[in-house]
This record gives sequence, C-alpha cells and structure tokens, in this order.
Amino acid sequence: MSFIPLLPGSLAGPPAERSDAARNRARLLGAARELIAECGADALTMDRLAERAGVGKGTVFRRFGSRAGLMMTLLSDSEAAFQARFMFGPPPLGPGAPGLERLIAFGAERVAYVMEHGDLARAAESSAHSRYEVPAVMLWQRHVEHLLREEGMDADPLLMAMSLTATLDPDRLLHAVRVQGLAPERLADSWRELVTRVVRGP
Amino acid sequence: MSFIPLLPGSLAGPPAERSDAARNRARLLGAARELIAECGADALTMDRLAERAGVGKGTVFRRFGSRAGLMMTLLSDSEAAFQARFMFGPPPLGPGAPGLERLIAFGAERVAYVMEHGDLARAAESSAHSRYEVPAVMLWQRHVEHLLREEGMDADPLLMAMSLTATLDPDRLLHAVRVQGLAPERLADSWRELVTRVVRGP
Repeated sequence: MSFIPLLPGSLAGPPAERSDAARNRARLLGAARELIAECGADALTMDRLAERAGVGKGTVFRRFGSRAGLMMTLLSDSEAAFQARFMFGPPPLGPGAPGLERLIAFGAERVAYVMEHGDLARAAESSAHSRYEVPAVMLWQRHVEHLLREEGMDADPLLMAMSLTATLDPDRLLHAVRVQGLAPERLADSWRELVTRVVRGP
Repeated sequence: MSFIPLLPGSLAGPPAERSDAARNRARLLGAARELIAECGADALTMDRLAERAGVGKGTVFRRFGSRAGLMMTLLSDSEAAFQARFMFGPPPLGPGAPGLERLIAFGAERVAYVMEHGDLARAAESSAHSRYEVPAVMLWQRHVEHLLREEGMDADPLLMAMSLTATLDPDRLLHAVRVQGLAPERLADSWRELVTRVVRGP
C-alpha cells in the first residue's frame, strides 16, 4: 500500500518556496483554521479569509486557486497526519497489532477525526467529482480491505471493505451526532461491534 | 411498525378526483416514466413532460407543484409497492420467514430495486432536506432494526440498523455498478455475507 497525497506537493509546498512566501502561506492557513473554528467550514470564504489575514483577495486566490483548493489544502494537512498514524504510527491504530484491533482503532479514530475536521471533509467531498472518488476515502477503503484479508476474510473483502467504509462517511457521522443527537462514543462502540462480528462471524 | 406514505394521499389521489382528472394524471405519470426510461431521471423536465403528454406546462405544474413533487409522486408509487412487499408480502421478504432470511432478501430486493428505480430515488434524495430524512429510508431502517431485534441482537440494534442501511444507499449502489462496474449480484452476495455475520457473529 503506497501513500497517496491528496494534492501533489501540497504537504511540503513547492521545493524552492521563499521563506516569506512560506510564512505568508502558514499565516493564511492559520487564519482559515481560526475562521472555521469560529463559524464552521461553510462560512469560510476567500473574502473573509483575506480580511482576517490582512492581505488582498488576489493573494488568497494566487495561493490556493479557488475555495475548493483552499479546503483541499487544509484537509490534506490533517488527512496526511491521520494517514501517517494508521499507516506508520504506533499500534493499535498502526502496524504491530492484530488486524481486528487495528480495525476497531481505525473506526474509533475516524469518528474522532470527523468530529474535529468533519466540516472540512464534507466541503471537500462536495467539491470532488464524486464522494466515492476522494483519494483519502479510497485509501481508507484499501486499508480496511488489507486488514480484513489479514484476518483471513475470504468472502469478497473488497466489497466488505466498501460497505464498512460507507458506514464511516463523514456526512453520515455528522448527521448522527449533530441532528440525531447520538454520542460519538456510541458510534465508535457500534463500529467495534460491527467489525468484530464481520471478522469473527460464522 | 406503521405504514408511512411518502406523500399524503399520493397513492390513491384525492378522494373525489374526477375521472377525467384521474385519466390525465395517469397519462402524465405514464409519459414521465417513458421519458425516464429513454433518457434517465436527470433529463425529465416539466417542459419535456408537458410536450410528451400533449398538455400545457401549467397543467403539469398544477398537478405536481414542482419537479421535485413529480419525482416524489413517481417514486412513491414504486416505493409503496416495495414497502407493501417487505411489510405484507410473501416470505422470505415478507413476514413468515426467520429474521435473517428476511434481512438477506431485503438487501437483494433493494439492490434490484435501485437498479430499476435508482435514478428516481437519487433525484428525490437530492431534493429532500437531508438524504437521511427521506421517509422511505427511515422506514427501511426501522424494518432492519426490527429484524435485528427479532434475531436477538442486543448490541445497540438502532445503530447497527443505521450502519447496515447506509450500505444500501442508492447513490452508493449506483456508483458501484455504473462507475466501478461491479455486478449487482456481487453486491447482493456481499450484503448476505455482511448481515449473516452481523446476526450470527460472536
């Protein structure tokens, strides 16, 4: 399984980025995160970001191209950190624990991640061509499939991974918590029950 | 569990509907189904429907209110037939079979239904306030929960039903078949494996 960056070069920035440009970028991203924390991702516009960061609107557009580009850059920073944890981090989320324990940890961490970054993930999904073709979603699905195979699941692990991943859709998790008022812990518990039954089932 | 009509009165029409009005309505719905069969639900507009049925555009709007209203009326006819089958029809989909057999049949029939009416279901979902609050979706979810309880599932059957229902989302099934090229039979097989493991699991 290889690492899929969400946007080419979006993690490190251009190789020869000048230090004032890098500071400018960091300041814009910091201001964007502040605005999201205060008003939610839906309220983050290029105008408001320029105003908050004290730069011209043209600077914001030159840096990120579009609002969708800004969202993807913000998301790719947090997605990359999450990917690094489940692919290379300590167990039980990372390698070293049995497949089922890693699956259980994956769902629990994913629920926590969506509670923190969900608005952003939702905004990025709605700007993608299809919510099933977001690179990060495809990567989780392959991760889940890999863990199912490791646990000896021989009944079409690809389709089972697709179904399990569908239950972690950010939009669905946010609706369950914000609209239906379900506790995130209850979602994580139900995921644990689901994957345990799928892996250990008859 | 009670029957939830998708639109009040949409199945039988107004009680005292005059017979020429009823014929007019049936002709419009027939023409709408023809257009969908030929060009897909996305191509069904009020203008094209009026033209096909040989009536004025005003007649179409007076009858259905809006394009979303037309979609819901079309869908409610086919949803009502599906609901009637899983609630009152013969086993294994209807009452009389064990819970697990009914669950397996439900997924298989649902996949087949989405292949036939999926464009309509997708159009109706996107015009609803939220795709989790479409009455039909809430009804299936309660049906799945009921069958899980009948099978003795005591680990949060409500949340398990929500997760299982998420895997049957029309948008997801259509993407799997049309974009990813997966056979509908493979989706139904994977559903059978999933619910069997969930019901019989450790």
